[in-house]
Amino acid sequence: MQSLASVQALVFDVFGTVVDWRSGVARDAGTFLARHAPGTDPAAFADAWRQRYSPAMEEVRSGRRPFTRLDVLHRENLEAVLPQFGIDAAAVPPSELDALNLAWHRLDPWPDSVPGLTRLKRRFIIAPLSNGNIRLMLDMAKRAGLPWDTILGAEVAQAYKPTPEAYLRTAEVLMLEPAQICLVAAHNGDLAAARRCGLRTAFIPRSTEHGPAQATDLRAESNWDVVAADMEDLAEQLGL
Amino acid sequence: MQSLASVQALVFDVFGTVVDWRSGVARDAGTFLARHAPGTDPAAFADAWRQRYSPAMEEVRSGRRPFTRLDVLHRENLEAVLPQFGIDAAAVPPSELDALNLAWHRLDPWPDSVPGLTRLKRRFIIAPLSNGNIRLMLDMAKRAGLPWDTILGAEVAQAYKPTPEAYLRTAEVLMLEPAQICLVAAHNGDLAAARRCGLRTAFIPRSTEHGPAQATDLRAESNWDVVAADMEDLAEQLGL
Repeated sequence: MQSLASVQALVFDVFGTVVDWRSGVARDAGTFLARHAPGTDPAAFADAWRQRYSPAMEEVRSGRRPFTRLDVLHRENLEAVLPQFGIDAAAVPPSELDALNLAWHRLDPWPDSVPGLTRLKRRFIIAPLSNGNIRLMLDMAKRAGLPWDTILGAEVAQAYKPTPEAYLRTAEVLMLEPAQICLVAAHNGDLAAARRCGLRTAFIPRSTEHGPAQATDLRAESNWDVVAADMEDLAEQLGL
Repeated sequence: MQSLASVQALVFDVFGTVVDWRSGVARDAGTFLARHAPGTDPAAFADAWRQRYSPAMEEVRSGRRPFTRLDVLHRENLEAVLPQFGIDAAAVPPSELDALNLAWHRLDPWPDSVPGLTRLKRRFIIAPLSNGNIRLMLDMAKRAGLPWDTILGAEVAQAYKPTPEAYLRTAEVLMLEPAQICLVAAHNGDLAAARRCGLRTAFIPRSTEHGPAQATDLRAESNWDVVAADMEDLAEQLGL
C-alpha cells in the first residue's frame, strides 16, 4: 500500500460500486410495469433504461449539449425507453414518470458499503465522484445511511466521467494533487481514466451489478494500486 | 411555524452562526504572534484579519475579479494585515503563513451546534451555505464533528453571499423552490438577502461572535420566520 501513503481523500464511483442500481430500479419499475405493461421483466426494464445512460452523457461530454444534470437525462431516457416495452409515454401521467425517475434516488447499498465507508471515513475524506447529481446522491445517502463527508462528482465538476475534468476539478476542489486522491470503483474503465489524470486507483469487483450473467468488470484488468474484495476488505487493507 | 411546513432543507451560515471564528483564529494567531510580534492581542489580530473579509469578496461580487475561493482571499488578507502589527510579511516563511491560514479550517463550534444539527438532520437536508470553500468546510466538519449531509455554498454556487446567485444556485442544486429552503444565520443582512430570493429565514443570535463588546446583530431586526435562542432551541421549535 506504499502508493497510497500520501492519499488524503477516497472518492467513489457510486452506481454499481456503492449501490446496487439494478435491483433498486427493478423494484420500483416492477410496480409501474404491473400497471402499464404486465408481464414485463423489471430487470430487463432496468437494463434497457440504464443502457441509455452513457449515450445521453456522451451528448454532454462531446460538447454538443451544455452540462445537464443526470436526473434530467434519466427522465428523458425513461420516456425514450417506454415504447420498447409497448408503453405509450404520452398516456402515462407525467407525475408518475417523475416518481419512477426517483428510483435512482432510492438504491440500496451493497451490504459491505456502509460499514466499510464508516471505517474509511475515520482516516480519509470520503465523497462520491459519481455522475449522479448532488440531490440524487443526497437523497440516496440519507435513505441508505451513506456517511459521506460531502458530495462531489459531475455536478460539482460540471463534467461527466470519464472526461478528465471530472477527476481534475474534483482534485482542485479538494485542494489536493491528483496523487493524493484515490478513486474506488468497480469499473476498470473509470479507473483507467482516473489513472491517466494521476489519481490512485482501487478496484472492487461487483460481479452481479449487471445481474447473474455479467461478463464485464469481473476482475481487475490492470495493476491498480489496490484490489479489494469489498469495501470492508478495502478498509482492512488500508489498516482501518 | 406554519411558514416552515414545506421546508425540506436547512442551509446554514457558518462563520459566527455555527462556529466561533474569533476565538479559533485568535488561538492559532497567538502562537504565531508570540514569535513575530510579542505583546500583540490575538483577538485584535483576528478582528483585523476578518475586517478584510468582506472587501476581498466584494472584488468578486462586483465582477472585478473572477470567482476565487476563500482560502486564497484569506491568504492574501493575512499578508496584507501583517504590517498593521509591525510584521514584515516578506520575512516570514510562506509555509508558516500557509499554516496560519488554516486556522479558519480549525474553528470550534458553539456548544449547541453539533447536538442541534444532529437533531435537525433527522428531518431536513442540512448543509452549509457559507462563503467558505469546500475544503475549508470539509476540514472544519471532520475536526468538529459537524454532521452535514453535503457541503454547499459559495464554491458550489460560484458566487459570494449576499449576491442572489449564492442563494438561488443553491436552491437549484437542491432541486427545491427557494421557499422550500430555510437559511439559518446569526446575521440579519444575510437573512434579508435570502428572503429577497424567496428563502425562509431563521435567526439565531450569537452575541459574542465579535467579542464582549459586540454591538451588531444582537437581535432579530425583522420578522424572520423563526427566531431561536440557539441550534437546540431551533430543533425544539421545529418539533425535533
